[in-house]
Amino acid sequence: MPPERPATREATFRLGVEYDGSGFRGWQVQPRVRTVQGELEAALRRVTGRAVRVAGAGRTDTGCHAAGQVASVTVATRLDAGRLRAALNAHLPPDVRIVEAAEAEPGFHARFSASRRAYRYLLVPRPTALRRCLAWARPIRASVAALNEAGRPLLGRHDFTTFSKQGGEADEPFCTVSRARWTRGAGATRFDIEADRFLYSMVRRIVPTVLRAAEDGGGSRAVRAALEARDRRAAAAPAPAQGLYLMRVRYPRLGWLPRERMNVVA
Amino acid sequence: MPPERPATREATFRLGVEYDGSGFRGWQVQPRVRTVQGELEAALRRVTGRAVRVAGAGRTDTGCHAAGQVASVTVATRLDAGRLRAALNAHLPPDVRIVEAAEAEPGFHARFSASRRAYRYLLVPRPTALRRCLAWARPIRASVAALNEAGRPLLGRHDFTTFSKQGGEADEPFCTVSRARWTRGAGATRFDIEADRFLYSMVRRIVPTVLRAAEDGGGSRAVRAALEARDRRAAAAPAPAQGLYLMRVRYPRLGWLPRERMNVVA
Repeated sequence: MPPERPATREATFRLGVEYDGSGFRGWQVQPRVRTVQGELEAALRRVTGRAVRVAGAGRTDTGCHAAGQVASVTVATRLDAGRLRAALNAHLPPDVRIVEAAEAEPGFHARFSASRRAYRYLLVPRPTALRRCLAWARPIRASVAALNEAGRPLLGRHDFTTFSKQGGEADEPFCTVSRARWTRGAGATRFDIEADRFLYSMVRRIVPTVLRAAEDGGGSRAVRAALEARDRRAAAAPAPAQGLYLMRVRYPRLGWLPRERMNVVA
Repeated sequence: MPPERPATREATFRLGVEYDGSGFRGWQVQPRVRTVQGELEAALRRVTGRAVRVAGAGRTDTGCHAAGQVASVTVATRLDAGRLRAALNAHLPPDVRIVEAAEAEPGFHARFSASRRAYRYLLVPRPTALRRCLAWARPIRASVAALNEAGRPLLGRHDFTTFSKQGGEADEPFCTVSRARWTRGAGATRFDIEADRFLYSMVRRIVPTVLRAAEDGGGSRAVRAALEARDRRAAAAPAPAQGLYLMRVRYPRLGWLPRERMNVVA
């Protein structure tokens, strides 16, 4: 007798997703352009035979990457999480990988259930062929200590209108930043930032503003003044998309996800 | 009075070249395909107005990269090395960068003057979107110590026919390997190898053979037996091109070049 086939049941899965944003018009599904959400939904349709909507914890812009995006989907399937992951990876293009899949409690939603997001911005000191789509080539004329000192006013709960995009979704401009740290290593400089939520293009506007403040001697006073201005003109022009990575997402009880994240952003 | 324009004179330059091999059919010029040498010669023609031939220290295959290829060219120009570098970078596509340029002594030839080459092979434990063109995704079931132990017989002067390509240029199969070292770090495993010369695809054949020996328990005895067989069938199937990097090249009196190499392979 053949082994019994598992029954089809409706289940919610959470997926850890890594992607190279270079070939995508961002995360969010849009008609007639290639997006990460679009590729994921197409693979899910092929695997499960059903049209489903995927939710992502953080939308990323055109050209931005993810080492650890978290997505959720509710779908009727026979597959367990491990088999779903393998089947999706077989159907996804190589610039998107499911690094982790697990069955989630009913009602889990990658975006609404998230309590914190972590982004990294990567800088290299000069143009490089091997990392041209993976970092911003910009020499830094300040020490890591000066950068960390300049960025200190970002910590805590603030109105981040200064670092938001004109026409962005900034009806609610308050974010609570719990980490904002510069480190140097392996030929690159990293800026790691964590907050409960981020405004559209916020990290890409914070990075050059802190760099300018640390380099010009304005330091933390200049960053505090920019923040308190609540005026987009107080921020420097946004840094390019290719340096930005969504690293991981925190959930109550679950902690930071994905757990299996590889160290691919350095 | 305008400053005097420097006179045109014939000079030999040495160039440090970084490239992402993903978009190239290797280093060497071939008709109707995109090669690194071809792009360099096209840029030199645009900058100097002259058709010139560029010599590279090491030919790399389709898909292989360079953090520090060294090239030489003799050309009549007004430009000094710094201006030549800037002008070439302005004309080169972003997947090739001149990281260093210097005027060389007459007769310097990137290939014939070189005394040693250093290659790195990069492995990651599972498929990754962000590094899919920059490393081989292969889990390793052996410790770094076991890999280093297994690879020990490669050191010294040997006939490397086992690790050469059928139909390759192995008239002279002897190479002197001065370094063969495995290290682990930042999510990747690295194999660094230095030798006076390399046979076609030699590193890509050594890597899986040492991995197999370390994982299967054959260890250094298995690698020594493969080497002494002088038979291509004793080697494992070659590892994929995208994990291989030409890192730097050594020259008598000059030492390792380029000096300005950035840490982009980790």
